[in-house]
Amino acid sequence: MKKVAIIMGSDSDLNAVKPAAVMLRKLEIPFAMRIISAHRTPDAAMRFARSAAEEGFGVLIAAAGKAAHLAGALAANSPLPVIGIPIKSSTLDGLDALLATVQMPSGMPVATVAIDGAQNAAILAAQILALSDEALAGRVAALRAEQTKKVIDKDEQLQKNIENILEA
Amino acid sequence: MKKVAIIMGSDSDLNAVKPAAVMLRKLEIPFAMRIISAHRTPDAAMRFARSAAEEGFGVLIAAAGKAAHLAGALAANSPLPVIGIPIKSSTLDGLDALLATVQMPSGMPVATVAIDGAQNAAILAAQILALSDEALAGRVAALRAEQTKKVIDKDEQLQKNIENILEA
Amino acid sequence: MKKVAIIMGSDSDLNAVKPAAVMLRKLEIPFAMRIISAHRTPDAAMRFARSAAEEGFGVLIAAAGKAAHLAGALAANSPLPVIGIPIKSSTLDGLDALLATVQMPSGMPVATVAIDGAQNAAILAAQILALSDEALAGRVAALRAEQTKKVIDKDEQLQKNIENILEA
Amino acid sequence: MKKVAIIMGSDSDLNAVKPAAVMLRKLEIPFAMRIISAHRTPDAAMRFARSAAEEGFGVLIAAAGKAAHLAGALAANSPLPVIGIPIKSSTLDGLDALLATVQMPSGMPVATVAIDGAQNAAILAAQILALSDEALAGRVAALRAEQTKKVIDKDEQLQKNIENILEA
Amino acid sequence: MKKVAIIMGSDSDLNAVKPAAVMLRKLEIPFAMRIISAHRTPDAAMRFARSAAEEGFGVLIAAAGKAAHLAGALAANSPLPVIGIPIKSSTLDGLDALLATVQMPSGMPVATVAIDGAQNAAILAAQILALSDEALAGRVAALRAEQTKKVIDKDEQLQKNIENILEA
Amino acid sequence: MKKVAIIMGSDSDLNAVKPAAVMLRKLEIPFAMRIISAHRTPDAAMRFARSAAEEGFGVLIAAAGKAAHLAGALAANSPLPVIGIPIKSSTLDGLDALLATVQMPSGMPVATVAIDGAQNAAILAAQILALSDEALAGRVAALRAEQTKKVIDKDEQLQKNIENILEA
Amino acid sequence: MKKVAIIMGSDSDLNAVKPAAVMLRKLEIPFAMRIISAHRTPDAAMRFARSAAEEGFGVLIAAAGKAAHLAGALAANSPLPVIGIPIKSSTLDGLDALLATVQMPSGMPVATVAIDGAQNAAILAAQILALSDEALAGRVAALRAEQTKKVIDKDEQLQKNIENILEA
Amino acid sequence: MKKVAIIMGSDSDLNAVKPAAVMLRKLEIPFAMRIISAHRTPDAAMRFARSAAEEGFGVLIAAAGKAAHLAGALAANSPLPVIGIPIKSSTLDGLDALLATVQMPSGMPVATVAIDGAQNAAILAAQILALSDEALAGRVAALRAEQTKKVIDKDEQLQKNIENILEA
Repeated sequence: MKKVAIIMGSDSDLNAVKPAAVMLRKLEIPFAMRIISAHRTPDAAMRFARSAAEEGFGVLIAAAGKAAHLAGALAANSPLPVIGIPIKSSTLDGLDALLATVQMPSGMPVATVAIDGAQNAAILAAQILALSDEALAGRVAALRAEQTKKVIDKDEQLQKNIENILEA
Repeated sequence: MKKVAIIMGSDSDLNAVKPAAVMLRKLEIPFAMRIISAHRTPDAAMRFARSAAEEGFGVLIAAAGKAAHLAGALAANSPLPVIGIPIKSSTLDGLDALLATVQMPSGMPVATVAIDGAQNAAILAAQILALSDEALAGRVAALRAEQTKKVIDKDEQLQKNIENILEA
Repeated sequence: MKKVAIIMGSDSDLNAVKPAAVMLRKLEIPFAMRIISAHRTPDAAMRFARSAAEEGFGVLIAAAGKAAHLAGALAANSPLPVIGIPIKSSTLDGLDALLATVQMPSGMPVATVAIDGAQNAAILAAQILALSDEALAGRVAALRAEQTKKVIDKDEQLQKNIENILEA
Repeated sequence: MKKVAIIMGSDSDLNAVKPAAVMLRKLEIPFAMRIISAHRTPDAAMRFARSAAEEGFGVLIAAAGKAAHLAGALAANSPLPVIGIPIKSSTLDGLDALLATVQMPSGMPVATVAIDGAQNAAILAAQILALSDEALAGRVAALRAEQTKKVIDKDEQLQKNIENILEA
Repeated sequence: MKKVAIIMGSDSDLNAVKPAAVMLRKLEIPFAMRIISAHRTPDAAMRFARSAAEEGFGVLIAAAGKAAHLAGALAANSPLPVIGIPIKSSTLDGLDALLATVQMPSGMPVATVAIDGAQNAAILAAQILALSDEALAGRVAALRAEQTKKVIDKDEQLQKNIENILEA
Repeated sequence: MKKVAIIMGSDSDLNAVKPAAVMLRKLEIPFAMRIISAHRTPDAAMRFARSAAEEGFGVLIAAAGKAAHLAGALAANSPLPVIGIPIKSSTLDGLDALLATVQMPSGMPVATVAIDGAQNAAILAAQILALSDEALAGRVAALRAEQTKKVIDKDEQLQKNIENILEA
Repeated sequence: MKKVAIIMGSDSDLNAVKPAAVMLRKLEIPFAMRIISAHRTPDAAMRFARSAAEEGFGVLIAAAGKAAHLAGALAANSPLPVIGIPIKSSTLDGLDALLATVQMPSGMPVATVAIDGAQNAAILAAQILALSDEALAGRVAALRAEQTKKVIDKDEQLQKNIENILEA
Repeated sequence: MKKVAIIMGSDSDLNAVKPAAVMLRKLEIPFAMRIISAHRTPDAAMRFARSAAEEGFGVLIAAAGKAAHLAGALAANSPLPVIGIPIKSSTLDGLDALLATVQMPSGMPVATVAIDGAQNAAILAAQILALSDEALAGRVAALRAEQTKKVIDKDEQLQKNIENILEA
């Protein structure tokens, strides 16, 4: 089974990125998690991207804040699908990272998910890999069913407790 | 080979979406192109999404403007990876469509490309399908090489003509 | 008397949505309050919307954050007036939910209120139902008079305490 | 049958507002169309709003651009539901009008539709009035069916012409 | 000497508005401070604005948040110069109030100051009244000199403490 | 009678600024109109601002685009009330000029009008000068009456022509 | 004398970038002008940046639109000062390019100028090189004097023609 | 060696600006740190800028929030390269300061760094001065190497602790 790489531009992104790793593990997808900066370690970024396919990776997830170039830098150096997670930082509420990640020029797509959307990045990677892996497709389907059930359960609880909630 | 579906929410999106079809054809990826509205034909949208996998589709591309719900509606009804193209309309320069497409809730990713980024949506679909199709991977690699060559050629032309350009 | 439905996309919206229920109760309008996700429980959303009119609902209120599709999904499946409450989430200060709720395409309006404007959604529902319910119209008028009186009272208090306030 | 009022803040809004009138006529809803400025004719605005209910109006539609106060001014002076249409003007792409219309304070909702969404304002008014008018409900249902059919027809045309479109 | 009116749309604006009153008092300008809502007490707003000139007011300061109509409503009903203070509320960081205050239509200016700029509103009122009041002009000049001195003093302190600051 | 100065930062602002001059002339207010750049002619800007009061000016109007510092630079060097007109330029739709004009720090207000709001800047200047000039106050009142009448006339024309308009 | 490099990410940026070259020539600064894409020719970008210092370049100017990574990619690979020009493209009015250029992470500055500010990029490069080149410093001073004179001349023309302009 | 000036518009900017001083000290670049307000001490600002070159300064760094005019005011009065740091204040998340700093008119560049990007301003100043100072160039290179090493170290730590992190 192909692996997923989760690359973050800085160790300060770790908390925001961790849900991607947790979700990949839950879906039993092998993954590596790395800190590689497009700006401070450009060699490492280029090397990682260029060898990723032959190292057995199938999808690259890149998380970065501010002028978030990491996903684009990986996309420029690898034919693999690259998923970008824009990370909210101390100013502009993540809008800078969103635009720097999603507005890629013709020829170099980055599959962008929501600001701080690490969990969704992992699920998207799973959906991609599941196209050629029926067992994984089954686990993705189970995850979706579980999500559905959670909403239904929450709704049932709400119906039971609605009087208490409105009194509170 | 799995097919790609290009769905647009309105026939007014056709010009913006057409480069996706042109690129898929160039990459020899079979595709269907449909007008299905999340709001005006919700049944059709749900039916299409639910049967897409068994109809042989591997990736769904959805293009919509304004409160662009189409990609999300497909994602809610299909386990396939969904790529969203936010379409610029007459107000707000596409920011509304971008946010309505990319800011998906936990559990339901949409792989969002740039505003009016139809060509990139097709390339991203190709990258995804190429994970299990070596011939397609070769065509994607050739496309990337061609893109690189174009930039190099343009630079060479610039070097030759720079005096004329600056005089003009 | 027709009922109002308050639908929220996630149980995390409950605190922001609760003022709608409190206001409907104050105005003696029967209502149901549900957690239904456009993305995680699309069947439930469609079923609810399609049967809402015959179940005795007159107005649907939908609250959701981020790429807030819930109101639009209900509007696509019910001829009833749909009121949308954009919910502020952890990034972008609610702008994403506002645009995803209000920028609906031609033919499918959503009556959008302010970000986190749950109380106003309830009052708007009341104004709509009051068109054919004189008793309710009276209660709405009383609410408006009460609001007016509150501002006048606050102003009177300010006049009495202005010296203390400026000293503080 | 209750009438709908379409109020615009300036005659320069006429082209953007006209689709509301055309749609109301199509739905056989009686209406008046007026130019009343919240700022230049505040008396007229207040008088109109205060007498609207007894003049037989059931819904007020207000269209204005920039610091769009008209809908709010009507809402402040009438218990009827007020629908706001933010109008795009020469700067800021309608964002100013959207925020000035939708972000109403607690107690005074304005049912806001999309920027330049005049047609949707009329449909929303029709949905509201149809709650107590079965014949109108039938015409709204027919409109929705017609909209659905149009999308389906467009899709059929696309399927027939797709080769020509892609060649063009 | 003409008085200044400080009107706020809600008692929740009191803390943000108070610096205007403190500054007017410091500049020995008589003032009234009122809570009047453009939406919840439109009569009071209109009455206040219409009689303000003959009540001895020379400048009206209006502070409001969200769809901030108060300044515009006063301007529509009084020929006096109206100063608008956009108040930041719980969403959108004051951008809504800024646009709703400043983007007034032709013929009805509102002299808008910075978001939460209550102190500046008072100083602007003082500058306006000082045009025909030499004693006040002297106090405004003294205030400006005091401001200048404060910056110079702070700079001197910085020069003395710079080593400590950089060590800290 | 005190004069008004209209300063623009560049001759390219002339068309946007001209309505201020036309309005001042209509209101019979003496004025000067100058091109002075805060950045390219900082001496001239400082000199003009410092001598403006004794040269007989009562109000300064400053129009500039992009990082619009002109109004602030005048305010820093003159105790007179300064009105700022943010000018829309080729990018960002005037938002940059609006924020650079209105978001002044404590102690240095700029009375900001709408983007490209030159006419309103002139009317605001007139309102300020009219506080100590009854004849001008009369002309301002007449202007307001004329504005009101124009709206009423337009509304009357609409009532007469509504059938033609809807047929067109 | 050290050279300046003007790099653009695409030949479509040529018109927006050309004023930088024209200004460098006017200031007699040797320069190269290249098309190198951070995404489509990452090798060329890295190679250029890494050898730029020893090739005799002193300042790198990078112009790109959308998710504008070019300036950052050069900064990551060269210790030379990098000036970024955000280029406005077909959506979002250049805001995406501005944020992607300016919001660089700690340790990797890009000296960002205004959207489409090619001329200023060249002047900034000249100011930097003039620190160690007195003759160039003289030419920069002359350029500044010329700019000042142009504004003064335009103002003089305005004074002469003001009557004609206001009549027109 | 030429000195760097760090000017801030208010003592409230001190914490945000301090990292610039710390970095300059680390790089052994002599510097002065001043509080000078473009608006409250315009004379001091002009005087400082005009004499900066002959006082031995080579680069001016200016930090200001809101309608951040300081960098522009220095640029207008000095031929030295001016670096602008937009400071985030209590509203608008620094967007106002960013636009007021970066969107300078033709002829007057400000080299703008990220919002609150004080450290990068210092590094940019160092890069500029290092063009004619080989020893400084060496220290800048060492800083870059140190930055690279930090990222690599953090990545190594992550690899060691990844299990603990995912368990936590």
